Amino acid sequence: MSDKFKIEIVDGSGRAGKLYTSHGIVDTPAFMPVATQGSVKALDSRDIESIGANIILSNTYHLMLRPGIQTLKDLGGLHVFMGWNKPILTDSGGFQTFSLGKLSHITEEGVTFRSHIDGSSNFLSPEMVIEYQELLGVDIAMVLDQCSQYGLIKEEVLKATDRTHSWASRSKLAHKGNGQSLFGIIQGGGDLELRRYSVNFLTSLDFDGYAIGGMSVGEPKQVMYETVELMGQILPYEKPRYLMGVGSPEDLVECVYRGVDLFDCVLPSRVARNGSLMTVSGRVNILNKAYKTLDGPVDENCNCYTCKNFSAAYLNHLFKAHELSGYRLATIHNLRFILKLMEDLRVAIQNNKLDIFREEFMYNYRSSNEAVRLSQKEKWMKNKLGH
Amino acid sequence: MSDKFKIEIVDGSGRAGKLYTSHGIVDTPAFMPVATQGSVKALDSRDIESIGANIILSNTYHLMLRPGIQTLKDLGGLHVFMGWNKPILTDSGGFQTFSLGKLSHITEEGVTFRSHIDGSSNFLSPEMVIEYQELLGVDIAMVLDQCSQYGLIKEEVLKATDRTHSWASRSKLAHKGNGQSLFGIIQGGGDLELRRYSVNFLTSLDFDGYAIGGMSVGEPKQVMYETVELMGQILPYEKPRYLMGVGSPEDLVECVYRGVDLFDCVLPSRVARNGSLMTVSGRVNILNKAYKTLDGPVDENCNCYTCKNFSAAYLNHLFKAHELSGYRLATIHNLRFILKLMEDLRVAIQNNKLDIFREEFMYNYRSSNEAVRLSQKEKWMKNKLGH
Repeated sequence: MSDKFKIEIVDGSGRAGKLYTSHGIVDTPAFMPVATQGSVKALDSRDIESIGANIILSNTYHLMLRPGIQTLKDLGGLHVFMGWNKPILTDSGGFQTFSLGKLSHITEEGVTFRSHIDGSSNFLSPEMVIEYQELLGVDIAMVLDQCSQYGLIKEEVLKATDRTHSWASRSKLAHKGNGQSLFGIIQGGGDLELRRYSVNFLTSLDFDGYAIGGMSVGEPKQVMYETVELMGQILPYEKPRYLMGVGSPEDLVECVYRGVDLFDCVLPSRVARNGSLMTVSGRVNILNKAYKTLDGPVDENCNCYTCKNFSAAYLNHLFKAHELSGYRLATIHNLRFILKLMEDLRVAIQNNKLDIFREEFMYNYRSSNEAVRLSQKEKWMKNKLGH
Repeated sequence: MSDKFKIEIVDGSGRAGKLYTSHGIVDTPAFMPVATQGSVKALDSRDIESIGANIILSNTYHLMLRPGIQTLKDLGGLHVFMGWNKPILTDSGGFQTFSLGKLSHITEEGVTFRSHIDGSSNFLSPEMVIEYQELLGVDIAMVLDQCSQYGLIKEEVLKATDRTHSWASRSKLAHKGNGQSLFGIIQGGGDLELRRYSVNFLTSLDFDGYAIGGMSVGEPKQVMYETVELMGQILPYEKPRYLMGVGSPEDLVECVYRGVDLFDCVLPSRVARNGSLMTVSGRVNILNKAYKTLDGPVDENCNCYTCKNFSAAYLNHLFKAHELSGYRLATIHNLRFILKLMEDLRVAIQNNKLDIFREEFMYNYRSSNEAVRLSQKEKWMKNKLGH
């Protein structure tokens, strides 16, 4: 059993635990708001605290380009820079270089890529990524990995997976530790056999935790759920499991149900800035005419700063008038909705009611994709009637 | 003596007083942050409170177009809408229709103008402006006026001034009161004779306060200071005086010195969003290279939320990375700087030290216009040596 993670109680595949870091303890399952460039968009660190976040994610690739790793080191590290005293996990930049497409070139040595800011040529090796995250002083570092886009032939996925494995070995060797955790990243695309292969290899290196990478890259939801389900079964029980880049409310519920402990995703904050606000019955568009005259909060049941202080009518106006404060208030609401959902999931596990919680949530929550919702509802009704 | 305004102490032409409104008391001299569309750009009402603002300004013209006066009335008025419980003054929209140039057409009846939002044709009469502000439930209403651009021939300025006077009479007749104050607006351009004429006429109507309108429309600073000085001498002593649209630090000091009680201006918040931050030695550009590695606050002496929580290096990064939180943190800093300046001016008056305060401020503060600064410094040195 690791001294960096303790599972307190399980309910089916779902787990409630505690993650121990140099900057405090994180109750799991947990969602990490995304501060890509050292700021959760539209919020400051006091805002993030007041929403109830206990851990955030930032990005080595972005921080390396701006303001620069040595600058951050000289300023006392990322925590001091951001004015954030709780845990930080940094992604390695593997996914970002993957997103750059033709602007990046991968060899066994590492990744050469053009900066999205000034076009300058840059290089990242697995060892550099480890060193950078140590200089940043973050609590959890991620290895550099090679992501595969969905639909690639198996041979190509295997090549990327092997590259990921070789880089993972080098990363593990390079990592000094000093209280910092290092997570490996499982690849293998939508192929369950390759995923098993990746788990076998990476667990042999004994990382502090395991991330499920290469999801949410265009694959059908069913592929993601199946992959995550398998991971929930074969990843080492006693290590934290982190599903990267996934964070819609329905996916959080489905994947906590399948045994995931950690999540990050830009979706809640990104859609907030487009005026899409989360409620227990689904996402609503604050620009809808109905909100123009609604003097109550967007969500009656919400205890966030925004809902406690401002009406839906005011938010509707702020968005129509393109007032910057609207983006902040909407972001606060959505992130609070997600963090509250994680708290509720944790309580459901503690009460051995994850099953019921999941069913009820899915019944109430209108997924953004109506077809998905209807099939979910149908399944639920069938189950209800069958039992 | 009015029961809506009490002067507590004078120092030369400078006055420290209290403005009494339905939503509380405002210490004067006071600066009103500008919430044109019902939001101080980048801030919410809790932010504005925590900066120490005791009164804000909003705009009838903008609110009429969006979200609409009746909508605001139905939602409980502007205070409820914004979640702001302290005093609000609304400008009438006279200045906005003036800014629209060819998109507005003025007759004795009122102003016909095209909406800047959707191009629709709209009409505002002096009586409508009064009714609207009563529906909004604001504490201080302004009359509809006709502004003159700087450099107009006297005949034209006189015409606009007479129009302003005739509208002021109609406004006074239309205003029901009910605890709401109504301020008249002195016009007359840069012509001191016309300004006297306007004061004579408007004071005969006995408004609750007098605004100095038509300033900061392209005239040299000296013209503004001379006009304000005359107003300080001939406007009724016992009524509040409000200089519209003026709010650079140096202008605030110079015009409090000349007897002004109230100010509003978008400058502090607008330049903040461009990364221009105010300090006792002048405005600095947060994007300057020196700030990239400065781990202290932008202004060592500042007690604002931003300076207490975040370094100049972090702000520099947020602005470089175009992070929305940077705009909010910079706005908080500049508005706190201005409100602190007003508090200091009030204390200086109370201690009979306005003269010294003004001299020291002008000596330290590098005005944005270097020529102005040098002539100020020269004058100061001459005075010092002469006495």
